[in-house]
Amino acid sequence: MSDVYVIGVGMTKFGKFLEGSVKALAAEAVGAVLKDAGVKKNDIQAAYVSNSFWGMFSEQHSIRGQVLLHPLGFEEIPIINTENACAGASTALHLAWTAVKAGLYDCVLALGVEKISHQDKMLSFRSYATCLDVEEFPQKIGQMMEELSKLELEIPEESQPGQGRSIFMDLYAMGARWHMARYGSTQRQLAAIAAKNHEHGCLNPYAQIRIKMTLEEVLNDRPVAYPFTRAMCSPVGDGAAAAIICSADYLKHLKEARPVRIAASVLGTGRARDLDGEHIGKTVAAKAYQSASVGPEDIDLAELHDATAFGELLQSEVMGFCPEGEGGLLAESGATRLGGRIPINTSGGLECRGHPIGASGLAQVYEVVTQLRGEAGERQVEGARWALTENGGGFLGVEEAVAAVHIFARQ
Amino acid sequence: MSDVYVIGVGMTKFGKFLEGSVKALAAEAVGAVLKDAGVKKNDIQAAYVSNSFWGMFSEQHSIRGQVLLHPLGFEEIPIINTENACAGASTALHLAWTAVKAGLYDCVLALGVEKISHQDKMLSFRSYATCLDVEEFPQKIGQMMEELSKLELEIPEESQPGQGRSIFMDLYAMGARWHMARYGSTQRQLAAIAAKNHEHGCLNPYAQIRIKMTLEEVLNDRPVAYPFTRAMCSPVGDGAAAAIICSADYLKHLKEARPVRIAASVLGTGRARDLDGEHIGKTVAAKAYQSASVGPEDIDLAELHDATAFGELLQSEVMGFCPEGEGGLLAESGATRLGGRIPINTSGGLECRGHPIGASGLAQVYEVVTQLRGEAGERQVEGARWALTENGGGFLGVEEAVAAVHIFARQ
Repeated sequence: MSDVYVIGVGMTKFGKFLEGSVKALAAEAVGAVLKDAGVKKNDIQAAYVSNSFWGMFSEQHSIRGQVLLHPLGFEEIPIINTENACAGASTALHLAWTAVKAGLYDCVLALGVEKISHQDKMLSFRSYATCLDVEEFPQKIGQMMEELSKLELEIPEESQPGQGRSIFMDLYAMGARWHMARYGSTQRQLAAIAAKNHEHGCLNPYAQIRIKMTLEEVLNDRPVAYPFTRAMCSPVGDGAAAAIICSADYLKHLKEARPVRIAASVLGTGRARDLDGEHIGKTVAAKAYQSASVGPEDIDLAELHDATAFGELLQSEVMGFCPEGEGGLLAESGATRLGGRIPINTSGGLECRGHPIGASGLAQVYEVVTQLRGEAGERQVEGARWALTENGGGFLGVEEAVAAVHIFARQ
Repeated sequence: MSDVYVIGVGMTKFGKFLEGSVKALAAEAVGAVLKDAGVKKNDIQAAYVSNSFWGMFSEQHSIRGQVLLHPLGFEEIPIINTENACAGASTALHLAWTAVKAGLYDCVLALGVEKISHQDKMLSFRSYATCLDVEEFPQKIGQMMEELSKLELEIPEESQPGQGRSIFMDLYAMGARWHMARYGSTQRQLAAIAAKNHEHGCLNPYAQIRIKMTLEEVLNDRPVAYPFTRAMCSPVGDGAAAAIICSADYLKHLKEARPVRIAASVLGTGRARDLDGEHIGKTVAAKAYQSASVGPEDIDLAELHDATAFGELLQSEVMGFCPEGEGGLLAESGATRLGGRIPINTSGGLECRGHPIGASGLAQVYEVVTQLRGEAGERQVEGARWALTENGGGFLGVEEAVAAVHIFARQ
């Protein structure tokens, strides 16, 4: 089966654009990606569009991709709408890759777009909860709380789960406390991750948060859900990101392409079994490494799903960049900073580049493609040849609903 | 590239199940399709799930497929959520077919499920309008009304568009009036289609409406939007339908399979250009015929998207079963009845089998697979070798947002 390439990436700045529209965000990212790829809109043969919450905020439940792309002149191509919570954009990329792999099309668009910021902040927070089983969640969170109470961790008194913040922060907090109890990870290690991502974010013009914060400043930021302070959590935000994917045959006809090869595209959905079990991401990563014929030791940089700093800590273990339980130590050692052994989230990650749910996966792709092309400027990872993106989405109780891993190779 | 097969179909009865749940509907269809295919849930390697409105009725905006399939024991497979208005289930099938074609998986599930009936009937009606551009629609319908006023048709006085019914009925009514003005089609021809579909529906145990109606009874039914009476319109309804898709290699290992080959799977999105222009469905059908190496004259039966009787009239022309403008004459001639030259909607169609938006496309597949296997009992089309399904979704002004055509071959 022939190779598949990314030939263009484009994104909007991420941020809170209260006055902005989903349509305007999509239009900007699509304009940017066409320009970057050097192709015309008539060259695009199909589009794969990810969005999670447009229905929630303005009842556009159906044909969202068509509503976004038709006014931009995409009038006669198949448009596939997809949704997979925080991993929706990676799912759009995976579907685009699959279609080109199947020989259906030579040149397709993957687009992710999300608008979450809203004058009614509680509506924004509530939207995140729709990435869970809405009916069963209240019961399941009770069970989880009970399990956690057995961990014998000293936890500062806090507000109730889900009040004034996304329920995901509470879920991640539970995971973090479990990791602390089991492996001795520390709040300080989480702060090291967040401080590093703030440093990286300052170097990324598209990042939502571009403020340098020291480890101490991260620790002293407003508490969210122990062990997290605000600086360790991805912010509410809006944005769009896109990529253009093509076949090897199509690439031959492009004179000035700066292609990056998609060496693996693997999606998994499933359990982390139980709090002590193996993470589904491990299975997905193993398939991706096998498909790309590389191992974690070959990866030069990675974008990991740091919806909170704990996400990065855990995933750096799950992806195999360090032994199990040592994600905190890895971060503390400086290995994951620019210039380190395995730079992670050079974009600033979800914590600082931002995390507009249905767009995030393609923003990860934007970063690694830019890096593998050697176009990342001040935040360039020198000599990068292989990059990995890991994008997770949704929870079913303690189980991850979507785990998506892509591996990219410099050409 | 190797062939792809349907090895199982399953569906619930369609109907208004006010007390039913999306989860229960999905569970029933999945149970049925596994039994029909003779495979176990652990044989399924990925799932493609279509739903449009769950978010509207109970805020399950995200990871719907995971929420549905996880409790059924699908715990570690990739699940792709897709949405494409009334053509969502055909889109799920198309994605399943694409993935098997690409060699990613050998055996996958396509599932469509929708629950629309609700105690608040206006909420049900409003849900359909979310298959349009919610923001731009009010303005566009004004333009369309203006164009239609030029047609010089005598139209009985009626209620305002969208009051007490789906806005789609008004859109289809406009199309029908245009067809009447241009080609001399008659309300009586539309009634002939509806009467035929009521007859077919009586033979289908899964049909929502199983009441025989004569042509005169159809004409005298409650007016909805001229030229439609209630009997010419698909009802509000709920249901689920599923198919299991596999590769040629996988099929070799099944001892008692009753496979049907997917000879073509083509999706298009785009304009009908203008009221006088060529319908996007024509382009999509031409690609499908080419891909399957057959022509409309080879097709033994078809399921067409008769959200109203006019849908069937128009699509019988667009699919090439009769010359342009003669869809009404074709129906009147009896050619589209069971026993006729080209039986259409032997299931009862959307009008009588029912039309739970995100499930309908796979209910069409259920019908044609049952027919091609020779298992359709009283409504069997004798000797059927080739079947076609046409499933449309959403409107952007006068333009169709999704046109999906599949062609199936008896093995």
